[in-house]
Amino acid sequence: MNHESSFNRGNRPDAEACTENIGAVKDALYVLNGKWKLPIIIALADGPKRFKELQRTVTGITPKILSKELKEMELNEFVTRTVYDTMPVSVEYTLTTYSDSLHEVISALRDWGLQHRKRIKASYKKARTITNG
Amino acid sequence: MNHESSFNRGNRPDAEACTENIGAVKDALYVLNGKWKLPIIIALADGPKRFKELQRTVTGITPKILSKELKEMELNEFVTRTVYDTMPVSVEYTLTTYSDSLHEVISALRDWGLQHRKRIKASYKKARTITNG
Repeated sequence: MNHESSFNRGNRPDAEACTENIGAVKDALYVLNGKWKLPIIIALADGPKRFKELQRTVTGITPKILSKELKEMELNEFVTRTVYDTMPVSVEYTLTTYSDSLHEVISALRDWGLQHRKRIKASYKKARTITNG
Repeated sequence: MNHESSFNRGNRPDAEACTENIGAVKDALYVLNGKWKLPIIIALADGPKRFKELQRTVTGITPKILSKELKEMELNEFVTRTVYDTMPVSVEYTLTTYSDSLHEVISALRDWGLQHRKRIKASYKKARTITNG
């Protein structure tokens, strides 16, 4: 199996292209670190949400982690935070246009995740058939 | 800004599609957890490698972490481990055809990483120009 054509572009030596590709993927994973940032972006994709709404949509996240993630995402310009002068004060999070640049990444991960889940289910089913059969 | 068309497919309610998308991305991130698995896959893309070679290609990884990652990747059927009866014994890691399914994910992350680095560099340059007057 030759993956050369898949990841390496142009006429550069393999090793050089490989190092650049590893560097770029590491950069991306460094910024998108952890398991929450992309789910938060998906949760905000259909419109701005308040903290509590976000917490309900991104199931399993604690308020402490959500707050930390949102701060990092504000610094990286994926979300903006708007404070409304209501009683009590309400805070709303909105995706920036820069977060749109993650569209391909999110689509690829979603498609792969769906496909992987199918594969796992199929292999469990097969294992059960063998055990029972 | 409406991201609805980007992530949600079909005619289902937004909330349902959003939950499914978050679930799928979380599944993917769960399997690909951490910052090393995708770089290891890229390093193996141009052919099988031995442990030491892999360690040299994936700069910054410790032998302990590399070993742990490779074990998880074997369990998830991304790599196969072949032991050769040489003196001393040599062990080689090869990508499986299943790892090919990550092609879109890796390409999307690489492209985004390259673009993000350019953006960061441009904003540093701009900041320096403003500071220096």
